[in-house]
Amino acid sequence: MNASEQRLAEGMLYTDQYQLTMANLYFRYGMHEKYAQFDHFFRDYPDYGTHRAGFCINAGLEWLLDWMDQARFTQEELDYLRTQVGQSGKRLFDEDFLDWLRNYGNFAGITMRAIPEGRVVHPNVPLTVVQGPLAMAQILETSLLNHLNYQILIATKAARIKEIGRGQVILEFGLRRAHDKGANAGARAALIGGADFTSNVGLSAVLGYAPKGTHAHSMVQLFIALGMSEVDAFRAYADVYPDDCLLLVDTVNTLESGVPNAIKVFEELRSKGYKPVGIRLDSGDLAYLSIQAARMLNQAGFEDTSIVLSNNLDEMVIWQILTQIVDESPRYQVDPDDLIKRLVYGVGTRLITSWGEPALGGVYKLVAVCENDKWLPAIKISESLSKTPNPGHKHVWRLYDQRGKATADLLTLDDEVPGKMESMTIHHPTNHSKYRTLRHTEISSIEPLLVDILQDGKLVYDLPDINSMRDQRNKDIERLDPGVRRMMNPHIYHVSLTKRLWDLKQNLIESTTNTVSNNVRI
Amino acid sequence: MNASEQRLAEGMLYTDQYQLTMANLYFRYGMHEKYAQFDHFFRDYPDYGTHRAGFCINAGLEWLLDWMDQARFTQEELDYLRTQVGQSGKRLFDEDFLDWLRNYGNFAGITMRAIPEGRVVHPNVPLTVVQGPLAMAQILETSLLNHLNYQILIATKAARIKEIGRGQVILEFGLRRAHDKGANAGARAALIGGADFTSNVGLSAVLGYAPKGTHAHSMVQLFIALGMSEVDAFRAYADVYPDDCLLLVDTVNTLESGVPNAIKVFEELRSKGYKPVGIRLDSGDLAYLSIQAARMLNQAGFEDTSIVLSNNLDEMVIWQILTQIVDESPRYQVDPDDLIKRLVYGVGTRLITSWGEPALGGVYKLVAVCENDKWLPAIKISESLSKTPNPGHKHVWRLYDQRGKATADLLTLDDEVPGKMESMTIHHPTNHSKYRTLRHTEISSIEPLLVDILQDGKLVYDLPDINSMRDQRNKDIERLDPGVRRMMNPHIYHVSLTKRLWDLKQNLIESTTNTVSNNVRI
Repeated sequence: MNASEQRLAEGMLYTDQYQLTMANLYFRYGMHEKYAQFDHFFRDYPDYGTHRAGFCINAGLEWLLDWMDQARFTQEELDYLRTQVGQSGKRLFDEDFLDWLRNYGNFAGITMRAIPEGRVVHPNVPLTVVQGPLAMAQILETSLLNHLNYQILIATKAARIKEIGRGQVILEFGLRRAHDKGANAGARAALIGGADFTSNVGLSAVLGYAPKGTHAHSMVQLFIALGMSEVDAFRAYADVYPDDCLLLVDTVNTLESGVPNAIKVFEELRSKGYKPVGIRLDSGDLAYLSIQAARMLNQAGFEDTSIVLSNNLDEMVIWQILTQIVDESPRYQVDPDDLIKRLVYGVGTRLITSWGEPALGGVYKLVAVCENDKWLPAIKISESLSKTPNPGHKHVWRLYDQRGKATADLLTLDDEVPGKMESMTIHHPTNHSKYRTLRHTEISSIEPLLVDILQDGKLVYDLPDINSMRDQRNKDIERLDPGVRRMMNPHIYHVSLTKRLWDLKQNLIESTTNTVSNNVRI
Repeated sequence: MNASEQRLAEGMLYTDQYQLTMANLYFRYGMHEKYAQFDHFFRDYPDYGTHRAGFCINAGLEWLLDWMDQARFTQEELDYLRTQVGQSGKRLFDEDFLDWLRNYGNFAGITMRAIPEGRVVHPNVPLTVVQGPLAMAQILETSLLNHLNYQILIATKAARIKEIGRGQVILEFGLRRAHDKGANAGARAALIGGADFTSNVGLSAVLGYAPKGTHAHSMVQLFIALGMSEVDAFRAYADVYPDDCLLLVDTVNTLESGVPNAIKVFEELRSKGYKPVGIRLDSGDLAYLSIQAARMLNQAGFEDTSIVLSNNLDEMVIWQILTQIVDESPRYQVDPDDLIKRLVYGVGTRLITSWGEPALGGVYKLVAVCENDKWLPAIKISESLSKTPNPGHKHVWRLYDQRGKATADLLTLDDEVPGKMESMTIHHPTNHSKYRTLRHTEISSIEPLLVDILQDGKLVYDLPDINSMRDQRNKDIERLDPGVRRMMNPHIYHVSLTKRLWDLKQNLIESTTNTVSNNVRI
């Protein structure tokens, strides 16, 4: 794909065909500028098979906004649509529709509220609320989901890895195993969710972080092929990067060659007044090898050097490594806490692909449409009540208990303000027998989660930088109940509806089902 | 990410930091223009957990070549590298290195051979062979792997889905669940591997395929919210697209509302002389629903309409659906073969993410370096012999038996030509007790797999279009033994070494291990 092809493939046509056929149908029926509301949300936490998330980290909004800002129906897009024909050979899109797209086929009419990036989020809560002319709000669907689903998925995985890694530095190493150019969005999301740095140079340049890395196995191979040795390769590295000497010790044999050679070179550096940075282990039994390497480094007086671990790490593998280090270190006179505090995790494939659950099932559902200045709620009746979206305009509030921990996210109708209620009965979203009543005294604070992002296409929001998102993430995670933060079998965080929203949903389901029965006569 | 940030993030700096620190080290040691060879290959077929692949489909080369053609160290890249500092605050990259990058930091010196896209490929076979000046061949690693790993992964998954779908039409629907912009590479790879069309409009525009789709649930919801009904929505669709009327029937209730309403509208279309296209089922028990829908459509005289199935399909789900259709159809007076022949599969999340195995572990290993006009083989001694790459210059040949089926891929040294040998002893790559001898009469043909792609940076290859790749794919799959094509527990296809290559590898492992023992004195 050359540059001009890429522009075409990633511009306004970065969408599904049915969005265009829908928009055209709305145009034909004079519905295309009807004001509509779509809610974006996900239904389930990522389930990685043997373990699952108890919370997610929101991410992706800024890059979606960048895409919306740039996407246009230019002459090239319109020329392409002009070539599309149906089965009969007749054009799918007539000139009057293309004219409308040329003039109004952009996102200048979109108003958006959203939960900011970096915040802890939960299922069935609207994360992004889009209002605007029906045709363009519809065309937006695919790209919105594409931009948000993946970054939420990766920010969430990164948060899990950061949690299990006891706050040690996490390096994102996944570029080579990522899904093509998705690598950049993945690295960004990892930095929001829990990674401290990435090896991805271009993305680091764009975001203003220092890219990280060690050296390649091939450097050692090269020196050996040329008749030299591993220690010669290490010496060369120490020579060129005396202040940043981090040596990859597993090209030949970690404990018999790599670590001893690294220590030899570290001693040379020390004698010249430099402080070696550390070693990297990239294969084998990382727990055992890190204990042995620590022991050898300690004996040589390099207690402060880092030990970077990599090779198919994820939250479960890191957990296993930590467990094994705690169990086995004492046998080798290595203090497990000291060892754990010098570890750095290089996490590649399993972070950038969200191993175990490589997609988030985020959806974008029509929830209301404006007719004669009146908003009508819309609903999709699916097989299961749990998949039926919550209709209409809503607000989202986070309720904190007296410990300062988040106890529920509450969805209310537009005109309900939970802070003004004496007590609140909050309902399970699908099971009518499940509800609880919260007295005002049980609640320490109530926080609205959705903020204004776009007003008629204009950005009305100060986009935070990644460091601010990380601060917000840390604050939100700190305010989760420990049960929700667990790696395995986390507690279910409550996402609830007010009584009025619950009733609206039930009434709508009933009336839609009735409408249907009235329409069908087999 | 705005357009200029994207250019920076996806250009020459679309690589890992250590590639740049390596290149700089080679520059400092005068090694940067040493001619070196790297082999790209993968070690294992994708393993999806409960099932795994017995062959892969090669893909991604053309987009890699496009990237290589465009990537440059422009002023912007060099300015960024100038800002990089180490722990001491000292610059990592000096001006003389940046000058070299400015002048020679491109891929004009790269010579490349590769197995073409669309071909069946196997583990441990060099798919892409790169020769060139060490520094640039090194910098290429990350982007090469990023471009090739994902497309091979998706082309392979698509081929599995096409196989299990008995050749019925496969539609790629994954844009919203893909890993950000990786969606486009994924859709392309799906089209190479087994999908017939994609819903992705921009990518279809670039590749010259018609994008496919039906309509949105939201169209039906909208009509209902506005006081109309599902049948009104269907009528509108039939009105605007009378020749392309494919109706999504599960917004309200598939069998009680959607299918009867679709039939009503199809009858109206028929009375006006149009031929309805079909229906789409997107939730519920797809096997049961498709049988019931077929029965109802047949009764109304619409035996030819398509039934598009979607909702988390992959090769195993389609297999289950087909099994259930064969078992249950007769009970409802539906012929299973007729039903299966009208099915179309819309495959989204699980194709575009390669569900079960979201990454291919492709690697790029230094195998030889040129010193004083002599090529020296290079090797990485890992923990396991099976992970040790095959050293030196090699050719790759596919041997076909007397049935015309591929029986082995054979790796030979540069000067070995298997067609000229009377009989061949071919060796298991890691187990020295496993080998077999093939007489010339057992072999019907021997095909070299690697073709010349770049000669000193110049394209010397006619890039095939996707249709040609598909023809090649079909031909290659047809020539696989049925055991290798199986969905579950496929036979292991033989990838073998000649005796001389096997000996070279063993000698090199021994001599490297000796060198190491000589170097290490603890």
